[in-house]
Amino acid sequence: MKIAIDVMGGDNAPLAPICGGVMAAKAYGEEILLVGQQDAIHRILKEQGAEGVNGITVIHAPDVVDMHDDPATVLRQKPESSMAVALKLVKDGKADAIVSAGSTGALLSGATLLCKRIKGIRRAALAPLMPCAGGQVMLVDAGANTECTTEYLLQFAFLGSLYAEKILGIQSPRIGLVNNGSEDSKGDTMRKETYALLKEAHEAGRLNFVGNVEGTDVPAGKCDVAVCDGFAGNVMLKTIEGVAKFMAGEIKKVFMRNAATKLAYQACKKGMDEFRELFNQDAIGGAPFLGIAHPVIKAHGSSSDVAFMNAVRQAIAYTKSGMIETVSQNIDHMTISH
Amino acid sequence: MKIAIDVMGGDNAPLAPICGGVMAAKAYGEEILLVGQQDAIHRILKEQGAEGVNGITVIHAPDVVDMHDDPATVLRQKPESSMAVALKLVKDGKADAIVSAGSTGALLSGATLLCKRIKGIRRAALAPLMPCAGGQVMLVDAGANTECTTEYLLQFAFLGSLYAEKILGIQSPRIGLVNNGSEDSKGDTMRKETYALLKEAHEAGRLNFVGNVEGTDVPAGKCDVAVCDGFAGNVMLKTIEGVAKFMAGEIKKVFMRNAATKLAYQACKKGMDEFRELFNQDAIGGAPFLGIAHPVIKAHGSSSDVAFMNAVRQAIAYTKSGMIETVSQNIDHMTISH
Repeated sequence: MKIAIDVMGGDNAPLAPICGGVMAAKAYGEEILLVGQQDAIHRILKEQGAEGVNGITVIHAPDVVDMHDDPATVLRQKPESSMAVALKLVKDGKADAIVSAGSTGALLSGATLLCKRIKGIRRAALAPLMPCAGGQVMLVDAGANTECTTEYLLQFAFLGSLYAEKILGIQSPRIGLVNNGSEDSKGDTMRKETYALLKEAHEAGRLNFVGNVEGTDVPAGKCDVAVCDGFAGNVMLKTIEGVAKFMAGEIKKVFMRNAATKLAYQACKKGMDEFRELFNQDAIGGAPFLGIAHPVIKAHGSSSDVAFMNAVRQAIAYTKSGMIETVSQNIDHMTISH
Repeated sequence: MKIAIDVMGGDNAPLAPICGGVMAAKAYGEEILLVGQQDAIHRILKEQGAEGVNGITVIHAPDVVDMHDDPATVLRQKPESSMAVALKLVKDGKADAIVSAGSTGALLSGATLLCKRIKGIRRAALAPLMPCAGGQVMLVDAGANTECTTEYLLQFAFLGSLYAEKILGIQSPRIGLVNNGSEDSKGDTMRKETYALLKEAHEAGRLNFVGNVEGTDVPAGKCDVAVCDGFAGNVMLKTIEGVAKFMAGEIKKVFMRNAATKLAYQACKKGMDEFRELFNQDAIGGAPFLGIAHPVIKAHGSSSDVAFMNAVRQAIAYTKSGMIETVSQNIDHMTISH
């Protein structure tokens, strides 16, 4: 198996993606394609004493996608960028999956354009894992689609369910529909229609639909997959991050208050480390773009080398899972006949 | 001034609203109308030794709105309910404002039907205050309107700005538009149109619009008023509550870990009490329904007596502020000519 890493994307590029790729090659024994400016890659491999590591291949791409580029058009304008070249490797069957910490919008457009969506899937969704009571919850869609339809939401539910089952190893994942109340009748027309379709899928044994979930229910761990339009999903994702950061800052103040609290911190250090680890995105790796016909993993912009290694682990598991084939085989259950 | 309290609404009714009303009468020197089943009210006043407290008037309402009633029709079906009677007091000029911890939907429908909206205001919005870095942020709308228009959002911005200025005492409140990215071009058509109108209002000196805000920005305190459709606003409000609860639970585990951490807690107790106070909704009191032609304060369902007292404080400040008149005088800036 070959995993392409766009080494020019993200805040810590190219060092973190290159080091993460090397760590992944050693840890997982699969072939890693480091895509980017070859001089920089070779220099860093040398500096890191990783020149001869088994399973590392360098693929030159002179250009770089940056945050000022228009996401919708950049991959056409910069066909020699590391992101475009890495996506083309996947498209051409020269790589099985791609990991990138570059622009979310550019990666989504590029993946849709080059790797295509699974036949019958209307839109790809960004599906990050968030911490919650008892483990993690997958949010589908967390921002790829500002405006959605009932059919998109139905597909997000199936895609999330299959990912949770096949890649995360959750048996019969609990699917919740993010809504403004838990009662069956809540939400706008799109939510009500989606509720009816998910209930039908549940009754047919195709999904484990647990009903509407509110903003309180998602961090409480009431579902494994939270289905949402990309606007509210993005608001939820960022709000979780924002509140976690705000509260962590306030907790820090509690411990920094005086000499006694600083001493108290020593007793609590192990617990606090575990607490911080809950919100450590690096341990997760990245978020898949579900619905694309090949595994595409969007790593967080601030990804460390460990985050890239974990994103590669995710890409390998995704590739091995056979999930994309399963989606294709069951696409009839995920489409609304008009 | 007369403030009506619906004493049959909320998880702790009628005890908490009655005791809160008595505390408010003593603290603020305004007349409090306790609306509900008179036998229960007199019995509780007696038990609490509050029979002769100055400024307390009991108004009998035999019926009660409960959570199983249809919010849209209950006040017509139960005209003798405490909520309906209290709203009618306001409508008839026998009370200046109302505080209720009853069903949000019923209070919204009833307030709209009986107290009416300010002329020109299209929809009332629920506007709770949430904790954030550096203070509090008002979320408008947090759930009254599942589906919105550009004009609603424009009005929410003005209503929130005026409330923050006149009742919360914030000079030139910073207005943010909740969006899925901070760039000017983000969001759906409604968000883009609203952005343009808010920018125009800012340039004309009518609002202090600070641009789009993401879910991360709201807990970080980047605005005083966050403008949102009621669906995403409800998701944001509940997500803040959910994450805060989840994290508080995890922090508790850190301190409950062993004998040393339990001892450490003693050193941190004062700081932890202040930390918890940040998220104490009772200290705020309630959320106004902005846009109604009289002050209507929705108290949290789990409100304590202190919460009711603070909600009355809010109702008094709202009544004194002259905000509703200011909205009427400036309604031309808040409407879109068609």
